[in-house]
Amino acid sequence: MSGYFITLEGIEGVGKTTNLNYVREKLEQRGIEVVVTREPGGTPLGEQIRELLLTPRDEKIANMAELLMVFAARAQHLESVIVPALERGAWVLCDRFTDATFAYQGGGRELDAEPVALLEKLVQGSVRPDLTLLLDLPVETGLARARARGKPDRIESEKHAFFERVRTAYLEQARCEPARVAVIDAAPSLPDVQRAIDIALERLEQA
Amino acid sequence: MSGYFITLEGIEGVGKTTNLNYVREKLEQRGIEVVVTREPGGTPLGEQIRELLLTPRDEKIANMAELLMVFAARAQHLESVIVPALERGAWVLCDRFTDATFAYQGGGRELDAEPVALLEKLVQGSVRPDLTLLLDLPVETGLARARARGKPDRIESEKHAFFERVRTAYLEQARCEPARVAVIDAAPSLPDVQRAIDIALERLEQA
Repeated sequence: MSGYFITLEGIEGVGKTTNLNYVREKLEQRGIEVVVTREPGGTPLGEQIRELLLTPRDEKIANMAELLMVFAARAQHLESVIVPALERGAWVLCDRFTDATFAYQGGGRELDAEPVALLEKLVQGSVRPDLTLLLDLPVETGLARARARGKPDRIESEKHAFFERVRTAYLEQARCEPARVAVIDAAPSLPDVQRAIDIALERLEQA
Repeated sequence: MSGYFITLEGIEGVGKTTNLNYVREKLEQRGIEVVVTREPGGTPLGEQIRELLLTPRDEKIANMAELLMVFAARAQHLESVIVPALERGAWVLCDRFTDATFAYQGGGRELDAEPVALLEKLVQGSVRPDLTLLLDLPVETGLARARARGKPDRIESEKHAFFERVRTAYLEQARCEPARVAVIDAAPSLPDVQRAIDIALERLEQA
């Protein structure tokens, strides 16, 4: 038996944490074992790589170096957390995964999608999320919410145009894989957003 | 004008540092700008990745994570140090490079050569060393010398058989690329070793 692999995606400030907790509670009430994790990170090594990636620094990080660090953390995460959890029948809820790499490194940094796709295959083999909840908000709204939380990290310090490219890349993935990626409008009230999430979860289990 | 890219390779204890300094002094006496660097490392980010790789830890690092971290550090090193130095006509002397990845991650960890070759192409494009000095010693001799230096790091703590595989992989690369890789027997006296290095350097400039 194998559990479902669900990822939450979206730019800063769209409410990933709140809604991830909502999904977790909903599943746990049904007695399902839920493993909540995040990328980059999810393991001791992965969290150390995350810190290297997010700490503001004077040194300009090469796009390829950033991309490879993201996938290094992912390789560790898959082998030691995600795959074992799915294999024992747990559901995995992951705050960001490879869609974020296509969106941030591909879209945001304007790297070709080709090396991202190549690394996805190399590192993940056939592992893909069963369902991706893409929480969507206009960049302006998301960034205003994120800024209210405090000091921005190295990625959050990017310019507005960077996040527009990230959002565009996310929405394009949703258009390419509509069966996997559910676009959830994060602008309405929380109960409305969560109703949309409920519908996406029901579809996953009916599929 | 472009400088030469020279790498020094070999298992622990073969005398890379001593001979790297020998080559550096020899070139500097001729008025050549020499950039001495090392892998993994060579940049602030690269040295942080090196520390993650070499610090002994309880967590088992996935082979693919280790491989990607090595190439992440390399991408940063190439973009911010190696390529700019070569472009301005400096010679680059690097303590270990991609041959070490084929030897340690490919040979030592028994990873397929295919992902290593794929990442080499992705990260380096057409950049390859002009000359590689492979300092060779029986594993027993090298490890005994290295152990005399103090506490082993995460890689140095590997078993004897690991280093036998590393040495075998190094020697196989030398057989595949005899024009680039000069095997230097590191067992004789230092003056003899350095005479062999001189010959390899003369051949490089005659080529």
